[in-house]
Amino acid sequence: MKNAIVGQSGGPTAAINATLAGVIEGAAVAQKQGKIGHLFGMQNGMEGLLEGRMRELDFLFSDTEGRELLSHTPASALGSCRMKLPSDPNDTLYDRLFKVLEAHAIGYVFYIGGNDSMDSTAKLTAAAAARQKDIRVIGVPKTIDNDLCGTDHTPGYGSAAKYIATVTSEVLCDCAVYTKKAVTIIEVMGRDAGWLTAAAGLSALNGPAPDYIYLPEVPFSLDGFLRDVNTALEKHPNVVVAVSEGVRTGEGRYVGEAAQSGVKDAFGHTYLSGAGKTLELLVREKIGCKVRSVELNLPQRCAGHLLSRVDIQESLAIGRAAVAYAMAGESGRMMVFVRERGEEYAVKIASADVSEIANGVRTVPRSYINEQGNGLTPACLTYLAPLVCGEVNIEYRQGLPCHFRFR
Amino acid sequence: MKNAIVGQSGGPTAAINATLAGVIEGAAVAQKQGKIGHLFGMQNGMEGLLEGRMRELDFLFSDTEGRELLSHTPASALGSCRMKLPSDPNDTLYDRLFKVLEAHAIGYVFYIGGNDSMDSTAKLTAAAAARQKDIRVIGVPKTIDNDLCGTDHTPGYGSAAKYIATVTSEVLCDCAVYTKKAVTIIEVMGRDAGWLTAAAGLSALNGPAPDYIYLPEVPFSLDGFLRDVNTALEKHPNVVVAVSEGVRTGEGRYVGEAAQSGVKDAFGHTYLSGAGKTLELLVREKIGCKVRSVELNLPQRCAGHLLSRVDIQESLAIGRAAVAYAMAGESGRMMVFVRERGEEYAVKIASADVSEIANGVRTVPRSYINEQGNGLTPACLTYLAPLVCGEVNIEYRQGLPCHFRFR
Repeated sequence: MKNAIVGQSGGPTAAINATLAGVIEGAAVAQKQGKIGHLFGMQNGMEGLLEGRMRELDFLFSDTEGRELLSHTPASALGSCRMKLPSDPNDTLYDRLFKVLEAHAIGYVFYIGGNDSMDSTAKLTAAAAARQKDIRVIGVPKTIDNDLCGTDHTPGYGSAAKYIATVTSEVLCDCAVYTKKAVTIIEVMGRDAGWLTAAAGLSALNGPAPDYIYLPEVPFSLDGFLRDVNTALEKHPNVVVAVSEGVRTGEGRYVGEAAQSGVKDAFGHTYLSGAGKTLELLVREKIGCKVRSVELNLPQRCAGHLLSRVDIQESLAIGRAAVAYAMAGESGRMMVFVRERGEEYAVKIASADVSEIANGVRTVPRSYINEQGNGLTPACLTYLAPLVCGEVNIEYRQGLPCHFRFR
Repeated sequence: MKNAIVGQSGGPTAAINATLAGVIEGAAVAQKQGKIGHLFGMQNGMEGLLEGRMRELDFLFSDTEGRELLSHTPASALGSCRMKLPSDPNDTLYDRLFKVLEAHAIGYVFYIGGNDSMDSTAKLTAAAAARQKDIRVIGVPKTIDNDLCGTDHTPGYGSAAKYIATVTSEVLCDCAVYTKKAVTIIEVMGRDAGWLTAAAGLSALNGPAPDYIYLPEVPFSLDGFLRDVNTALEKHPNVVVAVSEGVRTGEGRYVGEAAQSGVKDAFGHTYLSGAGKTLELLVREKIGCKVRSVELNLPQRCAGHLLSRVDIQESLAIGRAAVAYAMAGESGRMMVFVRERGEEYAVKIASADVSEIANGVRTVPRSYINEQGNGLTPACLTYLAPLVCGEVNIEYRQGLPCHFRFR
């Protein structure tokens, strides 16, 4: 009987461990049904797998409390990596990978991650096929960016969106207290897709919302921005805008480019920072009123103390489903959410060809952005709203959240 | 029968509205006892009072749900101001203030705020005395900075500390996932006092803690910082430090001074930013590993979604007590917390002469900081721990927190 292995890869989210817990639950069922032997976890994804660093996860099959704590713990409990696998399926690196997998009689690989991890999933599938290995590979999506193709949304997005919308509503409270003209610029993560920044607009569902929201899907005009801010300042003293870190001018230059570090990651992505800071300096220079920028920063992807219940439940479910799909014979697939039609929000879980998903970017459709390019349409809020619904009661000890840790 | 008025002033906190709710509860009792007529609220503190902008708050006397929602709503529901009252008690500005107060038959003034607001409280008391006005003035402390003299701690600090400690523990989860050497610098608010930065160390009570914590109370050495970071990098790849925005070198220069805006507020405070960013650039240049800085920013003072139950309950209690003290004849006093001796945490509420408190700064005692000046002592954690205890269930609608708003 073959064993299974699960790995986590890419940037942390607040829900990636819920998906890991879901895979563990699915594997527990498969083991009970006599379909798999053991479940292993890669330490630090493919990077650790190559070095044979793995741990057995069977001990969590019967530990309901441990899995619950895991599912509320932010970031990747198994560790992560940012490793690009070779494009050539015959590369010797794959020989080393399969050697490790075969040494542990592994027949099922589950890889939880975002775009780059789906690239790894597709390549591992191709390498297995090239060598006629009987190993099934399933990608399980996670990314706060919500930018994976082929799925209605991604696990991890809902919790990030809930944090962003909540903090935006709180910053709006904070900014409302003074009578002096002031501009507050909230900078939200999102390199190419504006989904996270759009979440700032959700605050409208239960109170005030930012005056303007700027997504990277629409070319950003510095003049247009100053016009917008001046228009808002004529209406009320406390202007709040949300802006994506990835906004670019019509010529394709990042607005924050002046503040760029020039550093690139293993995938050639430019590290961004500074759109908010750049616009802060612009307002100070051109308008001259009080102005500050607030970069929401890391808590957007790791604020495990504020989870979307919908997100955590779906993240668990998609992990369980991944195992069921692998047991049913699927491979080279990424698990996806398909939103059901109808008034009530509901999703079903399906799968899609991972090689067609990897390296694509699903951006915010133009129909979700208003004509002026500085706000959202009602259709956008209708899409976003169900994803942040529900709260999760997490465990605290001495006033601090409890987190799962492997010993 | 005289009326009462309450105002909020200075920077927002997540608990300042709980104190307002407490004053309202206290006033409801006083009204029932026939001691006061109505309770008014200043809109935008003294600034609004001067312009006669106020609202009646009696409608909240019987609205338990409204007061509860108010007590969980961040920032100042009545609006705030940053207004420095004249030092000369005979200044004509006071004539205008007393004219407004007398027009509304106000005999009791409650002013909720931090250091600068206690300065206003002391000056208003002196101006009332100079004119032999029968108006009692009570200051009620609030500040996330925890830097007011004469009190064990300040309302608002506990919730800010809980947010900082929680996010620190989550950032530690986030940083632990990769195997590559990386330094993360968490920049925490606190101009002169390190109480907020110290709160990052609370994460040790329920998991890992930052490698080093740097408070403004100890002169900061750039060389010492680099030595610390290198020492930690030898032990593990993911180094996390917490640093106060206000750290200064031995010569008294702010570490973030290079990034200063040069702007000063009405009280002559320099706007700070950039200690974290400065240290990030230093590590990149001198050590060369991956490095990032995370400025916790505004959510430190307005994250109403993560409140300390101890803080909110105490904030309510000190507001109620303020009214009781005024009814008992006190004036020119600030309400304070006195921590009881003994194993179990308990505070009693008392009052102190506000003129002796205003404009002082209570910093972190040297005995709370380790000998090397880069961490906390157990005594510090013992002091801090009870203040973040307990959670508050706040109300959500459509996945977003509900906030109180005056119509």
